[in-house]
Amino acid sequence: MVSFESDYTTGAHPAIMKRLMETNLEPLPGYGTDAYCESAKEKIRAACACPEAEVWFLTGGTQTNATVISTMLSGYEGVVAADTGHVNTHEAGAIEYTGHKVLTVPGHDGKLDAGELAVFLADFYQDGNYEHMVFPGMVYLSHPTEYGTLYTKAELEAIAGVCGTYGIPLYLDGARLGYGLMSYETDVTLPDIAKICDVFYIGGTKVGALCGEAVAFTKNNMPRHFLPLVKQRGALLAKGRLIGIQFDELFTDGLYMEIGRHAIEMAERLKTLFHEKDEEFYLESPTNQQFIVLENARMEEQKKQVAFGFWEKKDESHTVVRFATSWSTTEEEIEYLREIL
Amino acid sequence: MVSFESDYTTGAHPAIMKRLMETNLEPLPGYGTDAYCESAKEKIRAACACPEAEVWFLTGGTQTNATVISTMLSGYEGVVAADTGHVNTHEAGAIEYTGHKVLTVPGHDGKLDAGELAVFLADFYQDGNYEHMVFPGMVYLSHPTEYGTLYTKAELEAIAGVCGTYGIPLYLDGARLGYGLMSYETDVTLPDIAKICDVFYIGGTKVGALCGEAVAFTKNNMPRHFLPLVKQRGALLAKGRLIGIQFDELFTDGLYMEIGRHAIEMAERLKTLFHEKDEEFYLESPTNQQFIVLENARMEEQKKQVAFGFWEKKDESHTVVRFATSWSTTEEEIEYLREIL
Amino acid sequence: MVSFESDYTTGAHPAIMKRLMETNLEPLPGYGTDAYCESAKEKIRAACACPEAEVWFLTGGTQTNATVISTMLSGYEGVVAADTGHVNTHEAGAIEYTGHKVLTVPGHDGKLDAGELAVFLADFYQDGNYEHMVFPGMVYLSHPTEYGTLYTKAELEAIAGVCGTYGIPLYLDGARLGYGLMSYETDVTLPDIAKICDVFYIGGTKVGALCGEAVAFTKNNMPRHFLPLVKQRGALLAKGRLIGIQFDELFTDGLYMEIGRHAIEMAERLKTLFHEKDEEFYLESPTNQQFIVLENARMEEQKKQVAFGFWEKKDESHTVVRFATSWSTTEEEIEYLREIL
Amino acid sequence: MVSFESDYTTGAHPAIMKRLMETNLEPLPGYGTDAYCESAKEKIRAACACPEAEVWFLTGGTQTNATVISTMLSGYEGVVAADTGHVNTHEAGAIEYTGHKVLTVPGHDGKLDAGELAVFLADFYQDGNYEHMVFPGMVYLSHPTEYGTLYTKAELEAIAGVCGTYGIPLYLDGARLGYGLMSYETDVTLPDIAKICDVFYIGGTKVGALCGEAVAFTKNNMPRHFLPLVKQRGALLAKGRLIGIQFDELFTDGLYMEIGRHAIEMAERLKTLFHEKDEEFYLESPTNQQFIVLENARMEEQKKQVAFGFWEKKDESHTVVRFATSWSTTEEEIEYLREIL
Repeated sequence: MVSFESDYTTGAHPAIMKRLMETNLEPLPGYGTDAYCESAKEKIRAACACPEAEVWFLTGGTQTNATVISTMLSGYEGVVAADTGHVNTHEAGAIEYTGHKVLTVPGHDGKLDAGELAVFLADFYQDGNYEHMVFPGMVYLSHPTEYGTLYTKAELEAIAGVCGTYGIPLYLDGARLGYGLMSYETDVTLPDIAKICDVFYIGGTKVGALCGEAVAFTKNNMPRHFLPLVKQRGALLAKGRLIGIQFDELFTDGLYMEIGRHAIEMAERLKTLFHEKDEEFYLESPTNQQFIVLENARMEEQKKQVAFGFWEKKDESHTVVRFATSWSTTEEEIEYLREIL
Repeated sequence: MVSFESDYTTGAHPAIMKRLMETNLEPLPGYGTDAYCESAKEKIRAACACPEAEVWFLTGGTQTNATVISTMLSGYEGVVAADTGHVNTHEAGAIEYTGHKVLTVPGHDGKLDAGELAVFLADFYQDGNYEHMVFPGMVYLSHPTEYGTLYTKAELEAIAGVCGTYGIPLYLDGARLGYGLMSYETDVTLPDIAKICDVFYIGGTKVGALCGEAVAFTKNNMPRHFLPLVKQRGALLAKGRLIGIQFDELFTDGLYMEIGRHAIEMAERLKTLFHEKDEEFYLESPTNQQFIVLENARMEEQKKQVAFGFWEKKDESHTVVRFATSWSTTEEEIEYLREIL
Repeated sequence: MVSFESDYTTGAHPAIMKRLMETNLEPLPGYGTDAYCESAKEKIRAACACPEAEVWFLTGGTQTNATVISTMLSGYEGVVAADTGHVNTHEAGAIEYTGHKVLTVPGHDGKLDAGELAVFLADFYQDGNYEHMVFPGMVYLSHPTEYGTLYTKAELEAIAGVCGTYGIPLYLDGARLGYGLMSYETDVTLPDIAKICDVFYIGGTKVGALCGEAVAFTKNNMPRHFLPLVKQRGALLAKGRLIGIQFDELFTDGLYMEIGRHAIEMAERLKTLFHEKDEEFYLESPTNQQFIVLENARMEEQKKQVAFGFWEKKDESHTVVRFATSWSTTEEEIEYLREIL
Repeated sequence: MVSFESDYTTGAHPAIMKRLMETNLEPLPGYGTDAYCESAKEKIRAACACPEAEVWFLTGGTQTNATVISTMLSGYEGVVAADTGHVNTHEAGAIEYTGHKVLTVPGHDGKLDAGELAVFLADFYQDGNYEHMVFPGMVYLSHPTEYGTLYTKAELEAIAGVCGTYGIPLYLDGARLGYGLMSYETDVTLPDIAKICDVFYIGGTKVGALCGEAVAFTKNNMPRHFLPLVKQRGALLAKGRLIGIQFDELFTDGLYMEIGRHAIEMAERLKTLFHEKDEEFYLESPTNQQFIVLENARMEEQKKQVAFGFWEKKDESHTVVRFATSWSTTEEEIEYLREIL
């Protein structure tokens, strides 16, 4: 039995575990004020080529999205997202729980389009009743998207341009950012993201950490008194070291990129394998998630030997399934899969 | 330099770290559905002698308080706490953030009094305008309290009796429960708590874990669809294993109690030492936190050699400070402190 | 200058004003506990042929929607509405402000379709990840819709049937209910609505009152302690008499229906006039709102002599405008309009 | 049977009713954009001698408090009030419903003390853990207080001085402001209040209107996009004229002050009467509410002939009751009361 179910099925990268062990006995102050958190922030600023970035560590993706969005929006504002965006679908209403609406534009393989976004915003302000509506106060995008797809640098710049016209921040959800940065098909670097976006997060949970996401505010725009705002949302760890040490390690000697590179290499092998086996691709993504279509009976058969994710029904007799790679995916696992298919 | 600053300054108990290492490569399903979470829940139910308990793992104390309180209260209800209760003071308004008021009764060394609670509740329902007020919908207490003090079994039963009269649940915040259970001066056991309270949590973060708290609903009273409620609050970990494995270890071979016992033993040595040195006790607590009064100049001098917590100003020239012990406190550290005093 | 801008441009029906004058000096208890409120509730129950209905008076439409929806939903639930529904568009995010998501299905001239609703709900529960999503916890529809259209009795029953299958309440927003009930083209009566829906409101503000909406819970399902929930939302009037007296009058001698009938008669004359003048209908609604398309230059010209509502741009050179009738619309005003067109 | 139960038991002052009648047929735009609202705002600015004041009309007191407080506070802030303040006691948790805590200082006959406030604020910022606590972000006071008492101008200035030191706004709840302004014992004028406070409201509901409160932001500090914030809270009336016309009348020819003056005169007669009858005063207030102590059996007897408000139990055999006067209180009613006592 092997698992391609998701990129959060195994624990942390061994280097992270080692570092947690080594530092375990050191007494450190709580709530993210320790030296490892500070060091990790410094390394992230360097990796982003953004010395002015304000970095904050949170625990998980939904928590990060809700915290960032709700603390950056004004009360009369909502966040614009692709209709397939994680904040609109699979966060159990965490954004609305904070009192803000998710406004949607159509998603195209998970991506929102700068032109459509521009029309959406222009239409809003042309509506004579806009003061009775939810103001678009931020644009949210995920990169990679929920479908594993990526924006090009030009696409991100175009979206940022639209945001700039309306004076609203662009927020990039990088839950799987490492895989996006290391994709064979991307022209977007971490410094590009820091330059283009107003705020973004570097995902840890799904890129080799036990937990943890690093939020970067790049334009001197971190909400004032962010600590009590975070604590109020139940998102402040007493042992902040747990995330600080992990990110310190992830940004030492390029580990974060190395994890991304490895998973991408494994994903490319998966793609090659699926092509060899003439599998039907639902979406041939450039990142660590691959979506193929399986006939239902065959899917049931394979489930006995390999774990993968259920994505959606395609039709009565076919299902879209997801195969994800991570830091722990091995060539042996792919060979094992070759046998099964 | 030694640290008695708090019980969350070092990492996790070595046995926990070992277990995390051993299980690191195992692929496990996400969101708390793995076998370690299930096993940990089973062990907790056994330790509580409460086979019907519904157990859930959350990440930190404030998050747990806000999640439990806001999901168990009706919209028109608030939670009653001692005015010194953590939910009323040091959670940055996390309870109010969920839309609920904290109603207060006087704290006595951190404890609320059953008699005063009964009067408070009786007065509420005798007020002709009570429909214009916040209904008392739950009673919150911490055990140990924020001052390290403990309720007796009779006191807990009396409070539960008052709650029962009004049909409202009793919630016990056990952020430092291990130290309460192992105190030399307690008559309260974990099964007692499970029997007396409607919901409580067994603190992990401050009792030897990296993070994590185990909530137990003991009366078939876990809110329906608790998972989306937790996720909505940003409190659902993708790698739920992180907490499941830790609690599975904490409740294997009595580790949780062992950690408590060790810290209590160290705290008793601290007390003995303070008595020997004729230090002024602010409060001689029966648990792992000891509060003494230092003259300010002397406090500044000692701070250079030992870390302790600032508690509050006593008067212009004196300060109350806190010394806390934990799993990692050693006899050597106490001997070192002896030299300093 | 005459105004067809909306149905809330003039004050209250003269009979209501007269009644307010007559009762002005009577001392009455506050907060909706007076005899007029009670009498009005009794008359509404009778008009609905629903003696068990629990009736409550609120001040305006958005307030009513937010109060009803947020107090009837569980925390993990959202409300399903047509994408054009008022709660999804023109309430400034009032539903999300209460922490709940508006889930959308396509609107067809403002109406949602029972079949599409059934598919939406079935799909939700077939999604393996539904515990990570917002549960559909209520269905919201407006009748008349925002486009002046109406459901047939069969359509309402079909929607209620779908709701019944999933055990979720059907809520009807009757901001303009009087016009729907008196439409020449409806087969739906007030008792039908009380029987079919779980909760609905009879709009006053837009049907002849100064302010006020009457919510009816028809299935012994009014949320417990509704008074503090209402007060908490800032929706409880000290002088509750203001709304009670108005509804008491509206439901005396059929005034509410009479107001609806008059406005419908005037709207039908408008339709006839528009047909005579060969105006282009955007939508030939069966209620008191009529939507026609005007060439922009002509629209600007007419605006100098008659007030109407801007609805939306149709194309670069044409605009959809709305003409609304009310209790105060006169034949003279329509004749005046005839001159202008 | 006469009623001194409250100042909201009768309808509106006849001049207001007359004005509502006279304007009833005029078509006016909705949502507070009509000429009467504008005229009323202009008159209020003049009466306040504060031409830069931004004035907004809301419907009731709790709604106004919740809207003003929640839109002026930052997320990490709460509002400081006397423990007896209306926002802390009788608003069903409306402030907490918006996510903000009410922080309390002791009330002295309903008033907070500038010195105690200064200590409270100083202590907050001296606490090493203040980032884990709710920040004091505004000071709330009621004038008259819930006990009918009044601040002197010097007291208000002292409180404003403390607020200024910490850069937080001072908010005055003037639900019964007219009675405070016309008290025989006050030195505080409306222009004083506009000068001293950052925001306050002029109560209408309890001072002769059917409903309505006028909020004045005096320091160019009205929250941006206040309309959608108000609408989102369900507090925007479609027929905004209802409140605009009433306040336009209240501030024509000094009606608001005249109503206050009349009620004060009647209250002074009440006081004289109670003294003549040797009644025990609980509090001899300088405004329209008088509190006396009645032996319970006597209270029950009198309740049959005169309505008054229950305030609180004094002891087992005595009760504090409230007599309130208003625009509609007559000398005949007081003579009738004389007979009864």
